[in-house]
Amino acid sequence: MDLPDVSALTVAILGGTGDQGRGLALRLVKAGQRVLIGSRTAERGRAAGAEVGAEGGDNASVAAAADVVIVAVPWAGHAELLAELRAELVGKIVVDCVNPLGFDKQGPYALAVEEGSAAQQAAALLPESRVTAAFHHVSAPLLLDPEVASLDIDVLVLGDDREAAAVVQALAARIPGMRGIWAGRLRNAHQVEALTANLIAINKRYKAHAGVRVTDV
Amino acid sequence: MDLPDVSALTVAILGGTGDQGRGLALRLVKAGQRVLIGSRTAERGRAAGAEVGAEGGDNASVAAAADVVIVAVPWAGHAELLAELRAELVGKIVVDCVNPLGFDKQGPYALAVEEGSAAQQAAALLPESRVTAAFHHVSAPLLLDPEVASLDIDVLVLGDDREAAAVVQALAARIPGMRGIWAGRLRNAHQVEALTANLIAINKRYKAHAGVRVTDV
Repeated sequence: MDLPDVSALTVAILGGTGDQGRGLALRLVKAGQRVLIGSRTAERGRAAGAEVGAEGGDNASVAAAADVVIVAVPWAGHAELLAELRAELVGKIVVDCVNPLGFDKQGPYALAVEEGSAAQQAAALLPESRVTAAFHHVSAPLLLDPEVASLDIDVLVLGDDREAAAVVQALAARIPGMRGIWAGRLRNAHQVEALTANLIAINKRYKAHAGVRVTDV
Repeated sequence: MDLPDVSALTVAILGGTGDQGRGLALRLVKAGQRVLIGSRTAERGRAAGAEVGAEGGDNASVAAAADVVIVAVPWAGHAELLAELRAELVGKIVVDCVNPLGFDKQGPYALAVEEGSAAQQAAALLPESRVTAAFHHVSAPLLLDPEVASLDIDVLVLGDDREAAAVVQALAARIPGMRGIWAGRLRNAHQVEALTANLIAINKRYKAHAGVRVTDV
């Protein structure tokens, strides 16, 4: 299936100072993408950007300057941040990769989300953005490991806007070893987010950085 | 990780006349497992068994005669059947592979289940059984295709009883190409069941029989 050329797009990563955000930034920069790391303060965003060869700034300014905005913040701050950035995100492709999980002594479990999933919450808060969901299962330690040249993982991309989803699939495919697989509408995002709890259980049991490959595609 | 020897166990498949049940029966028989196919009537169970080289009977009698009981019935009949078979299933390893899905003109979606998942419903109805969940994502057409010698798929096995889960993992591993990966407690079964909706969406988009492989394990 033909995917669009996304090499000229600017990608912002909100919450880009966390491991997942920095790891994605690092891999996208290496692939030749222009990446902006966003944080609460411009200084922190710039500092995190400098670490991985990206630019940086505060969340609002990087969101305004980008074509594609990856949301990699902790679930606890998800709704508040997106509500604040509604104006900056109008017309943008938003990629939600937030996993609403709880942890107790039995390990991780999926939290109930009123809107159904983090991605659907984003879509509800950002009615004028093109909301997709992806990159839920990408291991931050592998992304950040300089010894790992190729990521053996498929990225499940969800979205009701197929063209926006294709852009995100193409972005995932720029990272060596990674594929972007369209995996359904946003109403089917919950289980993809929640599957991260299973991958964490697998990681603990098998001492692995588990990811997912879709077979026969 | 060492898995137990399950070659001497008898496996019953409830709802074994459906495509998924017959497909699993066929592959397990080929692997040398003793398999009993259950159906509402003994005649139908025996007829379906004869097709794939298995024995057969009514659901209650095959459940009573087996060590491991795979539940492959439609979601609509799930609770009723398990409630009826509670006595026969005491002490048995029960493997729930039911996916509670709805379908509308936008395709498949996960149904809300009061207990959290089909597997948790089974555990609630069968307090004296060893309930696990597995085989959700196995493609019936591939299982039944005589040209497909090896299944390129991992089976995610869930269960609070680790020994029971290990038996199910070992059973999955008897089928060429298949691995059984422990993937968490029953409270994390919902997303594994629901992921079948995403695989159906993938199948439609890519004209595939999609399955899942866990990487780095």
